[in-house]
Amino acid sequence: MEIQLPKHTTVQCHKIAIVPRYAETDKGGVVHHSVFPVWFEMGRTELLRANGIVYRDLEAAGIFFAVAELRIKYRRPVFYDDPLRLETTCSNVTAAKVEHTYRLFRDRDGLLLTEGSSVLACIGADKTVRRIPEFMYPPGE
Amino acid sequence: MEIQLPKHTTVQCHKIAIVPRYAETDKGGVVHHSVFPVWFEMGRTELLRANGIVYRDLEAAGIFFAVAELRIKYRRPVFYDDPLRLETTCSNVTAAKVEHTYRLFRDRDGLLLTEGSSVLACIGADKTVRRIPEFMYPPGE
Amino acid sequence: MEIQLPKHTTVQCHKIAIVPRYAETDKGGVVHHSVFPVWFEMGRTELLRANGIVYRDLEAAGIFFAVAELRIKYRRPVFYDDPLRLETTCSNVTAAKVEHTYRLFRDRDGLLLTEGSSVLACIGADKTVRRIPEFMYPPGE
Amino acid sequence: MEIQLPKHTTVQCHKIAIVPRYAETDKGGVVHHSVFPVWFEMGRTELLRANGIVYRDLEAAGIFFAVAELRIKYRRPVFYDDPLRLETTCSNVTAAKVEHTYRLFRDRDGLLLTEGSSVLACIGADKTVRRIPEFMYPPGE
Repeated sequence: MEIQLPKHTTVQCHKIAIVPRYAETDKGGVVHHSVFPVWFEMGRTELLRANGIVYRDLEAAGIFFAVAELRIKYRRPVFYDDPLRLETTCSNVTAAKVEHTYRLFRDRDGLLLTEGSSVLACIGADKTVRRIPEFMYPPGE
Repeated sequence: MEIQLPKHTTVQCHKIAIVPRYAETDKGGVVHHSVFPVWFEMGRTELLRANGIVYRDLEAAGIFFAVAELRIKYRRPVFYDDPLRLETTCSNVTAAKVEHTYRLFRDRDGLLLTEGSSVLACIGADKTVRRIPEFMYPPGE
Repeated sequence: MEIQLPKHTTVQCHKIAIVPRYAETDKGGVVHHSVFPVWFEMGRTELLRANGIVYRDLEAAGIFFAVAELRIKYRRPVFYDDPLRLETTCSNVTAAKVEHTYRLFRDRDGLLLTEGSSVLACIGADKTVRRIPEFMYPPGE
Repeated sequence: MEIQLPKHTTVQCHKIAIVPRYAETDKGGVVHHSVFPVWFEMGRTELLRANGIVYRDLEAAGIFFAVAELRIKYRRPVFYDDPLRLETTCSNVTAAKVEHTYRLFRDRDGLLLTEGSSVLACIGADKTVRRIPEFMYPPGE
């Protein structure tokens, strides 16, 4: 599959709205801590889309990004149906990896609830690690 | 991939033990209703294995079973860390579909908690529906 | 907690947009069949909200709705990042139960992908079944 | 609820068996990276149980442990139905937090697949942070 790609990423930070689902809570009455990596992934997908890159098309073209490292600081509990804002920042791109940071805020007052970071590696169609593609770099790098 | 398969299934009913995970509960304090299809799938996998068939190998050989219909009756709430017994029965096999029924019991007293049924279709490597393979039939059919 | 409630529901059918998440897919390359009950629940929540009822507030006031029965027909596979439209209809309300039907469409061409129905019971703060509250009925019933 | 508790934890490392479920995989063909925190939690629960402590009873008695920090290194992909061994170690206990480390191995050859660590805080029935209970400390501390 041939896909259209920009020469470079031009947007390095993007915000999305999230509303916690009932199924994402646990018997402690809050969102379970395993849900946040799912939201971070949504943040990365939409940051890519803001750059004109559809991750689904990347995979169809044989370019996969795999999470190699993940860190999360859970600062405050997150509640069902309480609207959130997730800010995803692409903080560093090298030949070997792409780094993102995440900040999750309560939408109504901007309270910081959760912070995180991740390191992605790029995997080719042959399932082995490959160089990060050119289009992932900001211009001038 | 070539796989070894029995001529027929000889075991039509199988029981597995399940212990509800914390992440499977919701803020209502019970296991979320979307978890039971996951357990039913585990029941089918182990029923196949009791027949000498490893579902992972079937997929590697290009034979997929897809859920076409699902019915669940939630009779009583199911709680975190309260051991269960799931009974999976292959109730009917035709050229077009495989039917299973499920009964989930509380292990300590045999109380029936949940009942269900499913209809599977068989999908080939070309992603289209195909006849149910011979080995899925009981002997003599 | 005191909450404001309408006298009756006036909206019996509501549509929401859904975009399948990466984490909702499985190794078969499609959305896993256990995800649809989660989406149906979102559909019910937004149908309530369209009636001026916030389900989170109902629970805070001691009114819980529990899924007693669920039926799903999976007509076609559903794919990652392929936008959907979910139509949720409240089809019947009696003293003992609330019934909904669901139709999931591919957004770009309206293709029907999945159908479902559910039966809810109402649970009070004392964890026992209670009558369906008056506000759930359409006007004139 | 009154519960029986040991004076101290005496087991600081515990292994459990895990078999990845179909629903835990994603369209990349491997276990999704959000599943590992769920397994780590199971590891902690069973480490507690090996010490004679049932986490469900702790919560019933108003003692909750909440994940405050999580780190995961995904070294190799993890596959459906490929048996694993998870080793959970309680590495440090202070008045403010409990630290665990995790190592996930492929069962058939002992290959290290994933490493992680977490920090837990203790929350009382009043939903505020409290001192880590005495029974969580190893003897002599």
